[in-house]
Amino acid sequence: MHRLVLIRHGQSDWNRRNLFTGWTDVPLTEAGLAESRSAAAALKAAGFDLDVAFTSVLTRAIVTLHTVLGELDRLWLPVHKHWRLNERHYGALQGLDKHRTAERHGDAMVALWRRSWDVPPPPIDPADPRSALDDRRYAGLAASQRPRGESLKDTMERVLPYWTESIVPALRLGARAIVAAHGNSLRGLVKHLDGVPDDVIPQVEIPTGRPLVYELDTGLAPLRRYFLHPGGAAEPAEWRRE
Amino acid sequence: MHRLVLIRHGQSDWNRRNLFTGWTDVPLTEAGLAESRSAAAALKAAGFDLDVAFTSVLTRAIVTLHTVLGELDRLWLPVHKHWRLNERHYGALQGLDKHRTAERHGDAMVALWRRSWDVPPPPIDPADPRSALDDRRYAGLAASQRPRGESLKDTMERVLPYWTESIVPALRLGARAIVAAHGNSLRGLVKHLDGVPDDVIPQVEIPTGRPLVYELDTGLAPLRRYFLHPGGAAEPAEWRRE
Repeated sequence: MHRLVLIRHGQSDWNRRNLFTGWTDVPLTEAGLAESRSAAAALKAAGFDLDVAFTSVLTRAIVTLHTVLGELDRLWLPVHKHWRLNERHYGALQGLDKHRTAERHGDAMVALWRRSWDVPPPPIDPADPRSALDDRRYAGLAASQRPRGESLKDTMERVLPYWTESIVPALRLGARAIVAAHGNSLRGLVKHLDGVPDDVIPQVEIPTGRPLVYELDTGLAPLRRYFLHPGGAAEPAEWRRE
Repeated sequence: MHRLVLIRHGQSDWNRRNLFTGWTDVPLTEAGLAESRSAAAALKAAGFDLDVAFTSVLTRAIVTLHTVLGELDRLWLPVHKHWRLNERHYGALQGLDKHRTAERHGDAMVALWRRSWDVPPPPIDPADPRSALDDRRYAGLAASQRPRGESLKDTMERVLPYWTESIVPALRLGARAIVAAHGNSLRGLVKHLDGVPDDVIPQVEIPTGRPLVYELDTGLAPLRRYFLHPGGAAEPAEWRRE
């Protein structure tokens, strides 16, 4: 049996300020750090151990991972960081206030941008600093890989090559892997693993700071999936229409 | 020109308690964390940037590195961890009080163990938990690679393959590298880079939390070496008999 832990980073500064974040590199809040410690407590209480870690190139996911590994005395594990695990790129919405955006474009439009399968946000000019694309960490991306604004579908499509080429080989070698990432990059993995329908996956809420554990068979098909609570209790995870 | 930054971790819990540490995995103290932040301030004030990082598998060096990268907004850089960058293995001295050891074995003997080139400490049984060799992070080491107690010479000899096979290729590709490590693994690198004589290198003191910068020519021979102070001032580094 293979084992995989998914963890969504805790509250960031822009979550708290209710801004669209996407690829903007904002820090965790103190509450976000506390969520990371609580995720570590859950893994520890359930007797979990790990062999390898994957995360995005965004500080909030990396710090979440470092906090978890620090609490578990596993900072020495190999950690692989890749932009393909980044949050969905929110295009021209990045940096905007969610409430004001709803006032301007209407709740229905914002709901579509936030909770649809294949509707991308309004595109951003890659030269706009709000796009974050001028950052040195993305210097190696081909022009075609630089998102101007991604739908959940776009996000999943760029996550999957990393899953296939980097995470799957580690799992097949028997490594117990943790992936510390973001609401939408994790939705992409969950959809792929569980075959969640297009119209259901946008509704799936992966709670922050709560480890989502997959037990996978030798073909990497899910046998069980559950959330781990801080005391170590397992709560079965189910994906359904709200 | 190639550029390399060496950084020795700050005060650990066992430094403060005056115990021989070696491969024992002890955390940084608050003072040690402050030293790491001060190292980051020095790099920032001097306008340094980095592309890749190397560290040991010991928490105190990893946390020093993470702190520096965090302060520089460079947590997204690739970080490579390897046991070959570990502190010298202190054999049967690990966990002993330095003062009491001197009372028992005499100051001259302890000085020889601490400040000689090729005198190893008394060997430890690898099955002794104080050896730290039973830790899972060393599971991949061959029996011949498991130190029972290293001299400075032994330490340098196991650091160099990692230098040659992992750090040098990164430098040759033009990467600005940082190595966050330990007093003796860094002495090994300094000796190699500068050809410091056997009887001088044990006396070389690399201060904790102060970046030691090497500017190297295309053949990786040192052109300049200097310490960076928190305000960004450079102080030439020289290695000589005390």
